[in-house]
Formats: sequence, structure tokens, C-alpha cells
Amino acid sequence: MRVLIIGAAGMLGRKLATALVKAGSLNGRPISGLVLADVIEPDAVAFSGEVETLDADISEPGKAEALVARRPDVIFHLAAIVSGEAEANFEKGYRVNLDGTRALFEAIRKAGETEPYAPKLVFTSSIVVYGEPLPEYIDDDYVVAPLTSYGAQKSICETLLADYSRRGFFDGIGIRLPTISIRPGKPNRAASGFFSSILREPLIGEPAILPVSDDVRHWFASPRAAIAFMIHAANLDTRLLGARRAVTMPGLCATVGDQIDALRRIAGEDATKLIRRQYDPAVADIIAGWPRCFRAERAEQLGFKAEADFDEIIRVHLEDELAIPASN
Amino acid sequence: MRVLIIGAAGMLGRKLATALVKAGSLNGRPISGLVLADVIEPDAVAFSGEVETLDADISEPGKAEALVARRPDVIFHLAAIVSGEAEANFEKGYRVNLDGTRALFEAIRKAGETEPYAPKLVFTSSIVVYGEPLPEYIDDDYVVAPLTSYGAQKSICETLLADYSRRGFFDGIGIRLPTISIRPGKPNRAASGFFSSILREPLIGEPAILPVSDDVRHWFASPRAAIAFMIHAANLDTRLLGARRAVTMPGLCATVGDQIDALRRIAGEDATKLIRRQYDPAVADIIAGWPRCFRAERAEQLGFKAEADFDEIIRVHLEDELAIPASN
Repeated sequence: MRVLIIGAAGMLGRKLATALVKAGSLNGRPISGLVLADVIEPDAVAFSGEVETLDADISEPGKAEALVARRPDVIFHLAAIVSGEAEANFEKGYRVNLDGTRALFEAIRKAGETEPYAPKLVFTSSIVVYGEPLPEYIDDDYVVAPLTSYGAQKSICETLLADYSRRGFFDGIGIRLPTISIRPGKPNRAASGFFSSILREPLIGEPAILPVSDDVRHWFASPRAAIAFMIHAANLDTRLLGARRAVTMPGLCATVGDQIDALRRIAGEDATKLIRRQYDPAVADIIAGWPRCFRAERAEQLGFKAEADFDEIIRVHLEDELAIPASN
Repeated sequence: MRVLIIGAAGMLGRKLATALVKAGSLNGRPISGLVLADVIEPDAVAFSGEVETLDADISEPGKAEALVARRPDVIFHLAAIVSGEAEANFEKGYRVNLDGTRALFEAIRKAGETEPYAPKLVFTSSIVVYGEPLPEYIDDDYVVAPLTSYGAQKSICETLLADYSRRGFFDGIGIRLPTISIRPGKPNRAASGFFSSILREPLIGEPAILPVSDDVRHWFASPRAAIAFMIHAANLDTRLLGARRAVTMPGLCATVGDQIDALRRIAGEDATKLIRRQYDPAVADIIAGWPRCFRAERAEQLGFKAEADFDEIIRVHLEDELAIPASN
């Protein structure tokens, strides 16, 4: 089977391509070809089958059609303008996150008009589709009410995905990712950046800034768990989903204090001393509007799994990013 | 102030125009002009101020901009392809119900770029944004999960409305209308048609067909109540809504049996004998997927009011459509 990854140049896209090569199959069928697309041409991956890399912005005319013309059996759609940029640039956010996704959905629908075609489609959504009033734990029946344009765009695409799937144009599943921690790479300016940097930097002896208080609580999964969600979603029998095609992924409900405690257990007290507390009311305000924890019962029943504690998340980071094998 | 009604040729649009003329003001400000638009040119209404009637399909290029160029202070957006047609014609449904609405929203946003402009916007949505699994009573925190393309389109427009309002491009409110009963006019082929015809026809001595069982339960309001919802929405201080700009309207939770009992009390046993029970499994199946009853607490707290029983709904019909004054 052929697999298309849209957003293949991003952190998760690259990890997904590598994981698919390693798995060699999806849904019991061997992967014969990989198409890796992004707004900048992604790096190729070492693979025994065909690998094609393409620069394609699906919000531009004809680009989604060109990707779909390759008739992939499974499509992972990860591409998006991030939250901060979608908020800063209203038109660009809607063009890329909504119109680009709709262009992809339409290209698939129209490809099916000439000869039967209904690929599996895994769409990465986000827990920021939820907004105030936020209960401490959000359950699967709770109303979606985004507080950002990015959240609105993700929510709208979930609704389109469900309708296109119900119509049989494709077989879609939307997975609402928790905040990814520990993101590899350099510190960035995302409001959520500190959730990764307060662990990532001290683990390599570098300082990090904590802009919120220790009792801030949020919902986390490692990059490794996020990739496992995507592959599990692609393998899933979507009849189990019913009409609700978007599923909140499981995660770890933890406070910043829990993160620091885990860092102390794994890397020692000295590592935690590299975290400098520098309260930033602007960041604290943004984070206060985010969902905290979930009861992700549907996802758990469907077999999605996340980490159980931050010790595990740190060990995943050490293994996957720093090549340090787990000691226990 | 100037008021624009989009969808002014429809049953509710015509009643709304008449009601606005009668009220003479919105939000304490006198209405100086009415712009009545629809895909077919609406009839004018007798009004001391300016009345303009226009045929305009807002899903066509430039049409929404032309309406917005009149800088209405309040916009009622009622125009839509109905549920059955949106299901039968996928492209037309999305073009009119989603792209048309978005074109309107974009026209307003862009009009505000040259000089400040942020009208009040009342958007009529529907309770069919809700889908399975359906609890007997749906509360305001329950997840939206449409089971039709029409429901998906309304839900998406609600999400856009909230985001555009949050951004300050306009001051929007979405009102989810119950099933309207008793709709005036001739029987139509809508699956919900019998909810009106089993009362409307017997009240004038005509037969009507009931295609479902007497215990079917649903959520109703009269046309008069629907118009009152719209006007109340236009007058409402939307700061009371918070981030959730769509509100499920109050209604009457009643069974078909309740409808028939009310008909008996108002028009006598003979009237009920005009209802012919002719079970239609196709209609029964459609109705089975519809929400039944709501706890519309937000709407009630915001001062929206519906009828308390079907006797009242029948009396409203007698007064408003047949000019028969209420006897008690």
C-alpha cells in the first residue's frame, strides 16, 4: 500500500515516516511506497520501497489534487499553521488550516467520482478545540468551544471529516493530540514551549525559564506516544467510532511540579536548579485558558495508550533523542 | 438603524420583516431602513421607513459584499438550503450553507478594514447540530455531533460565528431553532412536515397523514416564538454569552400523542379523526436520529421563551394564520 504524509517536514511528520519504515506495514498490509509532502520539501527516509518527497502547499490550487492523484491508501494529514501564527494572521490561518484541509478532502471526494476511491485518512487535531467554561476533567461528551482561531479551524475540520466520512468519501479519524512533551530541538516562542524546555534543557545541563507557577496542570504525551496514536488510528476499524470521528487522545494529567519532581528523580537535584522561575503574566494568562485534564475513555477503549507518569516521558526522551537507554 | 434580513422571502423571513415593522425599533433604537434579500426577490412590507428588496444569492461572488456595503447595523441571516436538499446535493449544500455564510462573514470583516464596522449578527442554526448518541434530554454542555450535511454546515457556521465574534469583526449570536410547528402553508415533503400537517390540516377540516407512532417525542416552538427568539437575540447583550455564541432555543418537549390530545381539546374529537395513521419506516428512521428534548437552561436564563404546551401552539396558529382570536 501507498502512504501519504502531509506535513512530513515537521517534527512529528519526520518521526512518523521513520516509524512507518520501521513498521513496514499498516493494517497488516506491507507499505510499498511513501509520499512525503510539506510546504518545504521533506528529507527522504531510508526505505526499501519507493519514497517520493514533494514541496506542496495544499492550500494552493491543484496541489491537493496532485497529491491525491497518487491514490494513497492511507493519508496522514498533519500539516498546519501553528496556534500562535493562526492567531496573529487570521487570513493565513484560515487559508492553510481550513481551506487547505478542505481542498484535500475535496480532492479525495472528486478522485472518487471517476473510479472508486476512499482512503483511510488520519487527521491530527488538538485538545485546544475545547474552551471555557473548562471543568477540571473534560469527558468525551463535553461540548467543543474553541477560544482561538487555530482551535476553531481544527474543530471545523473535524466536523468536515465526520461528514465526508459519513458520506463514504474517505474513512477518516481525527485524533486530538495532547500537548507534546518533551519536544526535541531548540527552545521556541510558543506559549507551551516551557512544558518541554524545563525538562529538555536541564537534561543536557542547560538553563530553562519557567514562566508559570508549579501548580499549573495540563495534559501531556511524548512524541513517541503521538506517533503511536497516529499508527493506531490508521490501523483502527473506524466502525468502532460511530458518527463521532474525532477522538481525544489519552494523556498524562500532570502539573509543572510533577514534571520537576520527575526530573529530580531521573537527573538529580542539580538538574532542577537549572530551572529559573521567572513569572510571565502573559504566558500564564494564555495557559489559564487551556484545558487541563481529560477522561479520554473513548480513546482508551479504542486501545490508544499514553505514558503513565513524567518519569516515563523523560526516559522516552533520553532514549529517542539522546540515545541514552533506560536504566530500569 | 438599518436592518438587513437575508432569507427574507421564506416563511420566517417574511414574519420577521413584519414583526420588525410592528416593533419599529431594535435595542431601543428606531429602525429607519429595512433591506430584504433572498435568492428570489422578497415582497416589500408596508413600512414608514425605507424598504429595499433584492434578489441576492450570497454564495455568488460579490453578492454578500453588495449587501454589506449598505452597512446594516443589524443582520439577520436566515438563508439556507434545507436539510433534505443539502443531503441530496452535497456540493450545493456546502456552497450555499457554508460558503455563502462565510462569504457574508468575510464581507463584514473586510468592510471593517476600511472604517470601523461590527454589526450585530443573528444567525439561525438548528437543533440538528446534535447527533447520536442522544440522551433523552440534551443539556447545554453536551457535545455537538451532526448526522447530516445540513447539521454539519450549521455547526461549522456556528464555530465561524464564534471566532469572528471573538475577533470583534461582528457581534454574533447563533440561535438553534426547535422544529417549527405549526408551519403555515401547504403540506411539503420534508420529513418533519407531519409535525405541522397533523394539526394544520384537521384545523381546516382537511385530512392529514401521520407516518410515525404516537410516542415519537420532539422539540417544538411556534413560528411566533421563533420570531420572538430572533428579535430577543438582536436585542441581547452578547457579553452574557461568553465565548459560546450559539444557544439552543427553548421549546416544548412533546409527543405526537400530546399534539393530538391538544388538537382534541381545541378542535374536538372529529378533528383528530382526520389524522390517518400510515406508518412510513423511512420517515420513522429519519426522525429516530433526531434529538428529542433539551434542557435549554442558558437560553432560559438569557430570557428566551417558548410555548408551554401544544394548546398554546395551536392557539397561536389560529390567531396568526386563521385570524381566529383565542377564546380564553
